[in-house]
Amino acid sequence: MEINANNTQLKSWIEVNEGSDFPIQNLPFGIISTDKKPKRVASRIGNSVIDLSALSDLGYFGELDTVHLFDQENLNPFIEKGKAFTRAIRNRLSGIFLEGNNELRKKENDLHKVIIPIDRIETHLPVQIGDYTDFYSSIEHATNVGTMFRDPDNALLPNWKYIPVGYHGRASSIINSGVAIHRPKGQQKPTDGAPVFGPCKRLDFELETAFITYPGKELGDHISPDEANHYIFGMVLFNDWSARDIQKWEYVPLGPFLAKNFASSISPWIVTLDALEPFRVSGPTQDPEVFSYLKYQGDKNIDINLEVLIQPENGVATTVSKSNYKHMYWNMDQQLAHHTINGCNIKAGDMYGSGTISGPTPDSYGSMLEISWNATKPVKLSDGSERTFINDGDTVIMRGFAEKNGVRVGFGEVSTKVLPSK
Amino acid sequence: MEINANNTQLKSWIEVNEGSDFPIQNLPFGIISTDKKPKRVASRIGNSVIDLSALSDLGYFGELDTVHLFDQENLNPFIEKGKAFTRAIRNRLSGIFLEGNNELRKKENDLHKVIIPIDRIETHLPVQIGDYTDFYSSIEHATNVGTMFRDPDNALLPNWKYIPVGYHGRASSIINSGVAIHRPKGQQKPTDGAPVFGPCKRLDFELETAFITYPGKELGDHISPDEANHYIFGMVLFNDWSARDIQKWEYVPLGPFLAKNFASSISPWIVTLDALEPFRVSGPTQDPEVFSYLKYQGDKNIDINLEVLIQPENGVATTVSKSNYKHMYWNMDQQLAHHTINGCNIKAGDMYGSGTISGPTPDSYGSMLEISWNATKPVKLSDGSERTFINDGDTVIMRGFAEKNGVRVGFGEVSTKVLPSK
Repeated sequence: MEINANNTQLKSWIEVNEGSDFPIQNLPFGIISTDKKPKRVASRIGNSVIDLSALSDLGYFGELDTVHLFDQENLNPFIEKGKAFTRAIRNRLSGIFLEGNNELRKKENDLHKVIIPIDRIETHLPVQIGDYTDFYSSIEHATNVGTMFRDPDNALLPNWKYIPVGYHGRASSIINSGVAIHRPKGQQKPTDGAPVFGPCKRLDFELETAFITYPGKELGDHISPDEANHYIFGMVLFNDWSARDIQKWEYVPLGPFLAKNFASSISPWIVTLDALEPFRVSGPTQDPEVFSYLKYQGDKNIDINLEVLIQPENGVATTVSKSNYKHMYWNMDQQLAHHTINGCNIKAGDMYGSGTISGPTPDSYGSMLEISWNATKPVKLSDGSERTFINDGDTVIMRGFAEKNGVRVGFGEVSTKVLPSK
Repeated sequence: MEINANNTQLKSWIEVNEGSDFPIQNLPFGIISTDKKPKRVASRIGNSVIDLSALSDLGYFGELDTVHLFDQENLNPFIEKGKAFTRAIRNRLSGIFLEGNNELRKKENDLHKVIIPIDRIETHLPVQIGDYTDFYSSIEHATNVGTMFRDPDNALLPNWKYIPVGYHGRASSIINSGVAIHRPKGQQKPTDGAPVFGPCKRLDFELETAFITYPGKELGDHISPDEANHYIFGMVLFNDWSARDIQKWEYVPLGPFLAKNFASSISPWIVTLDALEPFRVSGPTQDPEVFSYLKYQGDKNIDINLEVLIQPENGVATTVSKSNYKHMYWNMDQQLAHHTINGCNIKAGDMYGSGTISGPTPDSYGSMLEISWNATKPVKLSDGSERTFINDGDTVIMRGFAEKNGVRVGFGEVSTKVLPSK
């Protein structure tokens, strides 16, 4: 079924600009509102937003039971229905908007209710996140951090190649693209001297993606890598904001806490895993061999181009990193298999961050900590100013897309402005 | 107002056995169901359960707007209303059930609908937990762990007396008392040799309490210790199950993950902070002086007697620890102030664990890790068997109560049976 909606030959009767992240092969899901109507579920083709609650009210989903599924403040009730259902909805959307299908196109009254120009809507956090976990699955990132702070000759900790290391994060402070954040305050410990308190001096982004799950199994059961795909709804871009100086002082022995939980920003449109299947690529060789509960078959990485830009207040954005999700050592299926091997249950709307996605070269590192190599190599922006970390007034923008055979499926962006400490 | 409901002289016309945790001075909140009626909000006096949805339907809350507040699957909508409201409900309950008040007592038809014997109800998880944080705030526990695994002469890490150390945990796997758990599987690393995979061999409990919050402030704002009381709804007993061998191998550098997230068990009745106010005691001197955002005034610890028992399959329970919540180095108000100082937001129904509550003597340690001193001192149970950690078939029971001036306000218990790995 999904092959159909991903067919590279498909064209929509809705206009799609060249270079758009949202051709008919994407059909992501999000939450929108307009002046006239409160939050509801939507999709998008090009710069046209598709109001799914209107489509449902007008009867376009036929046999698919969408009553009160799309006039919701978040996607959770939709995601609760599972993969077969969300896939059927995406396939149906693909049909409705396919060039040559006039069932909606020729109905002026319906069209007016269903399609809204992108500049007339506001997006909102697409899911109510029950639990949020962050992994640490880029070998380049883990190696860079280990090299800077521990031992260049033993940069990776002994467990790293056995375990897709992860930790729990804060769900309440995950925010939508466009929501500004305040520089966090907290304790920091100068190398020589007593701890001090004040605004963080080393505010950093982390370039990540995150996946969102369907309902899982009962507490006590686990999900194998082969089953994992069935439990993953889609992905977003994820900026896991980090206060490096707060982190350094607080994180032993129980991990990062206030250094992370002040905010994490996501892109508003959840791109389904179905839409990303055509962009699968093979992952790295894993040596030593992983435990059998982590073994997988087939191509499980995804070729997603990623970019980070810093835009100073009233200035122009400068690209500071270009990375790719294909570099990940541990893939999503392994992450989910590991997360559940002890019987931990997952729920619809949970979010799972990849960990910082660094590539092999300095221009592909996924954090300022790595790009500026622990503040020893400042980065020059196009306005001539320099950055080792993020300044007040800066906006950090992340973009991502997959492209193959003339089709580009992307995420749009996650953009967040940093305001001074309150 | 709350002084009234806590008055030690109050008596209810409902019978309360001596030694009960639930006199009229308690009036906790929970979720119950019966054969005839699905989940709804309830309170409890002695062994009589009070159906608040029935009280509401019958009009007993008068001006207090309780429409659809108590015919709910969890307490979240009730907690959303804030402290003034939940306090007013508790005060009203105190009035209805006070000796001498016959407004309900003499109405046979109403009585029948409102009061249910404890053996005819089932309790359920009382809140939908949005985020769960666990602290590490007992100096005795942190010192014991540091002595065993690091350096007896520098048992506490440098940050411990500056920061109420905490980390994020998994909300989805928090379960009600009575729900059995399966021994988790996972990777373990023998001291000499490669990592292995299998059922955890060092399954442990952690004796904790947890507090549940009201809605907080906006993202970016913080809550001071003086304000914290206003944001805390109540407390439960909390067994933070831990797999010590999984923890040891996985926890560097990002903290415990699969060693904890397979299950945490709570007692079903949330005892309000209002009901616990009479049992406040002073906390320890904090030296070095804490940062001003952590400074508090008045008595902020609470004298709560705690007990842990192990009951082997088909056997009799043996007490293995008696501790007290009054030993905590960091109090709840400081924990909440620290958690929000960076702008992290809190929500209604969030849960915050105290960390293992160990007292100063070996018979008051809050985990088997400490009681058996890293498996070097087995504990003898009354059936003659020995334990260093928890066996399959064992039930771990935690109880807790505060007592003063002839009034005992308690939590009942959290009881969890351990089943073999699936």
